[in-house]
Parts: sequence; structure tokens; C-alpha cells
Amino acid sequence: MMNDPLDKIRIVLVGTTHPGNIGATARAMKTMGLARLDLVAPQRFPAAEATAMASGADDLLMSARIHGSLREALVGVGLVVGTTARMRSLEWPVASPREAVPAMLESARDADVAIVFGREHSGLTNLEIELCHRLIRIPASAAYSSLNLAGAVQIVAYELRVAALAVVGDPEPIAPRDAPPASVAELDHFYNHLTAVMLAVDFMHPDKPRRLLRRLRRLFNRAEPDHNEVQILRGFLSAIDARIGREQD
Amino acid sequence: MMNDPLDKIRIVLVGTTHPGNIGATARAMKTMGLARLDLVAPQRFPAAEATAMASGADDLLMSARIHGSLREALVGVGLVVGTTARMRSLEWPVASPREAVPAMLESARDADVAIVFGREHSGLTNLEIELCHRLIRIPASAAYSSLNLAGAVQIVAYELRVAALAVVGDPEPIAPRDAPPASVAELDHFYNHLTAVMLAVDFMHPDKPRRLLRRLRRLFNRAEPDHNEVQILRGFLSAIDARIGREQD
Repeated sequence: MMNDPLDKIRIVLVGTTHPGNIGATARAMKTMGLARLDLVAPQRFPAAEATAMASGADDLLMSARIHGSLREALVGVGLVVGTTARMRSLEWPVASPREAVPAMLESARDADVAIVFGREHSGLTNLEIELCHRLIRIPASAAYSSLNLAGAVQIVAYELRVAALAVVGDPEPIAPRDAPPASVAELDHFYNHLTAVMLAVDFMHPDKPRRLLRRLRRLFNRAEPDHNEVQILRGFLSAIDARIGREQD
Repeated sequence: MMNDPLDKIRIVLVGTTHPGNIGATARAMKTMGLARLDLVAPQRFPAAEATAMASGADDLLMSARIHGSLREALVGVGLVVGTTARMRSLEWPVASPREAVPAMLESARDADVAIVFGREHSGLTNLEIELCHRLIRIPASAAYSSLNLAGAVQIVAYELRVAALAVVGDPEPIAPRDAPPASVAELDHFYNHLTAVMLAVDFMHPDKPRRLLRRLRRLFNRAEPDHNEVQILRGFLSAIDARIGREQD
């Protein structure tokens, strides 16, 4: 198919412990038409077990990109979707894969979409979760929710494929966004600037800024700000800086 | 849940070559709330690899029933659904899992339903296919359709679970929001306060504030802020007011 939205989907595995799971993930991806694998600090890779488990999908391992941090892996990504096995205590909205997939394919028209899978035993850290615009949770059994990593990727990739097959041929053009989505780096600069201003006006205690900032990240990430919107917000922060005489970093 | 239709679903693996795949299948089943595994002439079982791959789902291996033939495994079954990777040359109707699942759950009210998965490399024989009432095929990539056995079971079990939850109602608690959504009045107060501060720091021209404010409303409304979040944002605006010496209205 032309302009396949699945070409814009990146699967990002963070801190994978067992290389066999990386290989099985590559196989699961390729059966569903996904090709782009990003690895963040894998414990062992390349590895013979990865190649063995990939079966005929070892081309995905050959072209996989390896990164030192999740932030680095997200350069150039418009929408970041985290996967979680837990109900988070903070109210970070968690959708099912089926609910989330249409918006993911929609975003894939404009920019790359990253779907982030955490470590086999511990998942994603709170700091990693904060880089995500949305979270999805596979509705596993409450009695035994221990999905294998490649099994989780298989389900999400399958949902994407089924939705993409249904969408292809849809003749209705959807109104494009005014501006590209803000990059992860742009959002980071904004949150750093916001933190600096909040400290300068004594809204935040310098010693425990994390919880408040996490709430604000959650709020803004939910809105998926575009490039222009982040520019406006930063312009506002700069105007406050000028008014209170704070030197910008 | 009571009278769970998933309790009537049997996964039947025919002639499995690698015991590790039997274990991985048990794990995939259990995560989706399936418990009944039937093995037809497995090449090696029980086996240490099966137990290792089952992880916490080894209870399904312990209770698995072993049969000499598919026909024997289907005693007491009302509906037999075969899985195939190929488009059959015989004109045998082949549905997708999503299309087939409602009828499977419907049948599971009256009698057991068997979903039959063939050998890793060669699938089901024509004689085995003839024992099936229906066939399903997972819409894998034409370029690489080599789904792992446990991956195929994972997808079909997932489709069953999602459909069963939709029918029965999800018994799992959904994380409640921290706070009720912000009221229209609260949002109005916030936007008025935001406008006043933007004017005070010279970020906004007093004569044409509308366009900028409309963009910011669009951004914040998209996030659907709750009561607490609006309180935080207003707290930040009040801290700016205090710092610049603006009297609040």
C-alpha cells in the first residue's frame, strides 16, 4: 500500500533484559507490517538469542537503532505512547490499545509515532512515563497480567495493522494541523522554562518540585501541544521573565 | 466474572514440535483469562522448556489434556474453529478473528468451543481442516506471515477477551479521576485571570487579545483540565501577581 501509516510507527524497547525478547519482538512486528525498532540501553545486544528468536525478521534487528536514553530515542517523534501494566495512581489517562489506535494512525500522517515498552519486570520509570503523551494498557486478566514483552508488542502491532487495513482507501481528507507537533526537545525546554519561572515567583519549593511538575506535564502532554502553541507558551514565560527581571538561561 | 464465556473456550494445539511453544502458549492464554489447553500428539511433553516458557502459567500445563488425535480432542465440543495461515484453495470460508469472535462467544453459552492451531511449519492437514466448522486467519503481512504459535494464540485470545469484556462489562476497576472535571465557570475564571496576567506582563496587546486567547483556550480545553489542575494553574497566576505587585480583581 502507498504511504503506509505503519511506516511511521516506531517500536521502542527500553532496558530489555533478555535478548531473546528483542528477537521475538522483531518477529511479532514484522508479521504485522512494522519495520522500525529502537532499543534503549538493552542489557545485551546484538546477541545470538535475539537472532534465533527473530527467525526471518532479523533484518529488523540489523536496522534497529540503539540509544542511551529514551529521550534520545524520541528525537523526531510527534506522538509518544507509553505502555503500562498498572493502573497509575496519578490520574494519567490510560486507554486500551483499541481506543488509542485511531489517534495513533492519525498522528502518523504528520510525524513518527513511538510506542514505548518498558523493562520485562519493572516497566517504565515515572520519568520515562512523563515523556509520553498517552498511555495504553492491554486489558489483561487481573489474576495474571504477566504478558510476555513480544506478546504485548504482538497485540499492539496487530491492533495497528487491523485499523490501518480498515483505514486504507478512506477517501476523506482530514484537516491538517496548523503546525507540526512539538518535539520532545521543545517540550523539555518549555518544562524547564516553566520550572524556572515557577521557582522565581516562589510558586514552587526548590527542594520538592517533582510532584507539581509531574502534574503540569500530565496536563500539557494530554493536550499534545503543537510547535506554535509551545512558542506561545514560551513567549508568555519570557514576558514574565522580562517583567520580573529574571535573566533567562 | 460469573458464567464467564471464556471458561468454555479450549485452545487445541496439534502436533506442536517445540515444547517451548506450548509453554509460551499457556502464558499467552492465561494473561487473557483462558485456562483450558488441549494437546494433540505433541512431539515432546511434558518438558522443561515448556515449564520455563510458561512462567507463572504452569498450572495450565499441569491441567492440559493430551490426546492421540484431533478427533479425540473434540469430544464434547460444539463449535470447532480452525486457524490457517493460508488462503485455502478449496472454497472454505475464512473469517478474521474479529469477525469470528462474536459467534464463538455466542456458541460458548451452550457448549465448549475449540480453537485449533496446527503445527509450527505445516499447520493443519486437510483432514483436520475438515473437522472444523469455521476457519479464521489472522491478517498478517503478505511479505512475512510467519507468526509464532504463541503469538497467534495471543491475538486470538486477546480478541476473545476484548469481546467478552464488552459483552459482560469490565469487572476491573478503572482508576477514578483525582478530581471532577473543571466547571465552565472555573475555566472562565481561569481564562480571565490568564488574560489579566498576560496584559500585566505586556504579552498581549490590550486592543486585540481575542486571537491569542482563543488559541490558548483551544490548547487548555483539549486537555480537559480537572478542578485540581485549574487550581494549580490559578495558584501559579496568583504567585506571578504577587511577584509583580498586581492587585487581583
